[in-house]
Amino acid sequence: MITPRTPSGTLELLPHDQIAFQRMLDAIRAGYERFGFLPVQTPVFERSEVLLTKTGGETERQVYFVQSTGALEKTRGAAGEGADDGEHAAYPELALRFDLTVPLARYVAEHENELTFPFRRYQMQRVYRGERPQRGRFREFYQCDVDIIGKDQLSVRHDAECPAIIHAIFTDLAIGPFTIQINNRKLLRGFYEDLGIVDGDHQAGVLREVDKLDKRGEDYLRTTLTGEGFGLAPDVVERILEFVQVRSTGHDDALARLAAVEAASSGSAALAEGVAELREVLELVRALGVPESDYCLNFSIARGLDYYTGTVYETTLDEHPEIGSICSGGRYDNLAGQYTRSRLPGVGISIGLSRLFWQLRDAGLLDASTSSSTVQVLVPQVDAELLGDQLALASQLRQGGINTEVVLDGGKLGKQLRYADRAGIRFVAILGRQEAADGTVTLKDLRREDQFTVPRAEVVSALRVELAQPLV
Amino acid sequence: MITPRTPSGTLELLPHDQIAFQRMLDAIRAGYERFGFLPVQTPVFERSEVLLTKTGGETERQVYFVQSTGALEKTRGAAGEGADDGEHAAYPELALRFDLTVPLARYVAEHENELTFPFRRYQMQRVYRGERPQRGRFREFYQCDVDIIGKDQLSVRHDAECPAIIHAIFTDLAIGPFTIQINNRKLLRGFYEDLGIVDGDHQAGVLREVDKLDKRGEDYLRTTLTGEGFGLAPDVVERILEFVQVRSTGHDDALARLAAVEAASSGSAALAEGVAELREVLELVRALGVPESDYCLNFSIARGLDYYTGTVYETTLDEHPEIGSICSGGRYDNLAGQYTRSRLPGVGISIGLSRLFWQLRDAGLLDASTSSSTVQVLVPQVDAELLGDQLALASQLRQGGINTEVVLDGGKLGKQLRYADRAGIRFVAILGRQEAADGTVTLKDLRREDQFTVPRAEVVSALRVELAQPLV
Repeated sequence: MITPRTPSGTLELLPHDQIAFQRMLDAIRAGYERFGFLPVQTPVFERSEVLLTKTGGETERQVYFVQSTGALEKTRGAAGEGADDGEHAAYPELALRFDLTVPLARYVAEHENELTFPFRRYQMQRVYRGERPQRGRFREFYQCDVDIIGKDQLSVRHDAECPAIIHAIFTDLAIGPFTIQINNRKLLRGFYEDLGIVDGDHQAGVLREVDKLDKRGEDYLRTTLTGEGFGLAPDVVERILEFVQVRSTGHDDALARLAAVEAASSGSAALAEGVAELREVLELVRALGVPESDYCLNFSIARGLDYYTGTVYETTLDEHPEIGSICSGGRYDNLAGQYTRSRLPGVGISIGLSRLFWQLRDAGLLDASTSSSTVQVLVPQVDAELLGDQLALASQLRQGGINTEVVLDGGKLGKQLRYADRAGIRFVAILGRQEAADGTVTLKDLRREDQFTVPRAEVVSALRVELAQPLV
Repeated sequence: MITPRTPSGTLELLPHDQIAFQRMLDAIRAGYERFGFLPVQTPVFERSEVLLTKTGGETERQVYFVQSTGALEKTRGAAGEGADDGEHAAYPELALRFDLTVPLARYVAEHENELTFPFRRYQMQRVYRGERPQRGRFREFYQCDVDIIGKDQLSVRHDAECPAIIHAIFTDLAIGPFTIQINNRKLLRGFYEDLGIVDGDHQAGVLREVDKLDKRGEDYLRTTLTGEGFGLAPDVVERILEFVQVRSTGHDDALARLAAVEAASSGSAALAEGVAELREVLELVRALGVPESDYCLNFSIARGLDYYTGTVYETTLDEHPEIGSICSGGRYDNLAGQYTRSRLPGVGISIGLSRLFWQLRDAGLLDASTSSSTVQVLVPQVDAELLGDQLALASQLRQGGINTEVVLDGGKLGKQLRYADRAGIRFVAILGRQEAADGTVTLKDLRREDQFTVPRAEVVSALRVELAQPLV
């Protein structure tokens, strides 16, 4: 007998939670489709040579390789025969994707001539990382990505679509108030250039330290940046500290902050470009109907140091800042330089749904949405002799588009009702002798603790009316 | 520069086809939910010891093992140091699932105390097999499974739900007329027992030969079964040939066929049980509203020889028998004997959607459904100065639940309209100077080649009316 165990580092859910998870997936997908994005799915594995072109050391160590039994035996056979290490250092042919960006780059480069640009795609699939298992860290997790890819160029106007998408989706998900924080890498680069921190590595080093502000505090930063390694002047450090603490408090305040940054600049072209891009993005975000309370400038946001080149986004829950960013992304210059000579600039965002779901559940923020089943009606077995009528009623409900479970094993009605209640099934459609004689059905609303009898021909329309009314 | 290539043996689709594929997935999921099944997803990999308990040689050879870089290097290091082969013969810890049945068995056994029985779950995920790549054979493919699992027992009534589900889903998919073919393994076993073919291996050998009837013909079967290996009498072979060619032509004919088989029996208890089960299943399938033209008895169906124990199903497209069974399944005695001492009988069906999609596309049966995009409306850029109005219109449409793409890069209107047409976007919502002055929007219906102007406040309701009308 083998002990049945889920592999560690995966988020396997019981049906109740899986329903809540699917509702979130559905809401995100509906949001992406509402903004005119097309679906793409790629295989779970890629050819290793495709997957490993772009990665640094850390990601590469976390890659999961895939080998069939035959391939595995071949490798081992060769090793057993004392073949040299050089041969074995070659990777297996296939590996599981560790994000959705590399597969997107491969997909766009491979199908370049069959796609229309700007190419707007969404992709919601699981990705894999061989992390050490620990609380809240997953080896398998969903990413829900949306990207707009241009050919040769892509107007910065598209950068305004991302906040609008984030706003629509997190409003639908109803997990509390949130703020979309916007910054621009050109602005950042220009700001540091103006301070004389021009060299790329130097700048990256400073940014890495600045990123520790929340954890280590201002004094750590003052000591470190004025110290030997960086050697910045104290007033330069104060300007950095002031800069990274900028959060705008409304649309006009955001524009004023940009004007102030521009006025204080000693003339960096990058800074001017970043300011101009942010201005345009902010205007269009407002034109797209995002309320000004839901977005702000945050000059501390940098995101991945190598990848993003323009606008960057992070999103936080106002009442749960400890969860960190729930949706991030940004603008990049060239998606697929490893696979094609075409220049493919893009902008996109990603929601790490497995981690978000886990955190929301952990924080007790999922209660309301998990209490209802996908099953809308239970047809209990009241009288075994009426089984045929009971099945006909179930068919009638299903043909009316109502998700219906029918009890085929019998048992006491009270027990069947308790099952429905525990399972989160809201309605019970009872067809007993009396109802059969009258041509009616008795509908029990377990949520409202209410019941009423309707003619059998009207059972679908009656339930539809009930289901359409929100439960307060 | 790395050549971007999709791994072989996978079905990666362009967005147009992906939309058609998703519509099929959605229809199947909606069908499963309408019948009261709950969603389950399991990790793509299982622990190898869990996955390999049940498999025979063929499946085991096709398993894909998964190893992180670290684990891979460890194995190789050990091999390099000359450790003995015995140690290396152990499999890596994880492997990709090759079906959804083993993960279901593990899931139910692991979460037994947290589930309610009968447990009704659907699962639609990809599975992996290290097949040799060939036309129409996939290494990664979707299975869409639905199963009802009982604890200790499960009424045969549940066997009648499967044909009803198949009927509902393939009616919705609208890929042409189909027939659900039903048989029963007990009936089969009893029939052969009556003929004196009692021994399990002997019976399995005969069944394997009978399965070749379509390919090899009757004469091959006569020669083989009366030959040395089997030694059956000629009249026994004739009775077998007659039996396996039984196809009922309606509900009453099906019952008559059962009566005839029972009358001809020399008293096998298994046969009597199989006949009784089939009778009950047929009655309830009819009570569930499946038209009698859409199901039949087919005594030639056996399915997997080891796994199924009672009712078995296959489904074929009437106009495309060459595609083979598009949905199969059956009743089994015990789902998870390797993982738990509880007896878990079940019944279920599976749709191999990747293969089905590929075959339907190959046969040109997908044309109609692939011609429309998920994007319902395009808002073109008519006048750059009206960008703000254009974005506000897009927001209005999206808030009204309409999937809307907005053109942000400009270009000639004619080109934008041609893009919408080619992309399968049915409506274009034009907001030019005239419309802005009048407070209107001009809606072009590219499918009907029609256009009309509506007040801006009514654009959502006007489009909803249009979208709700079927295009004939």
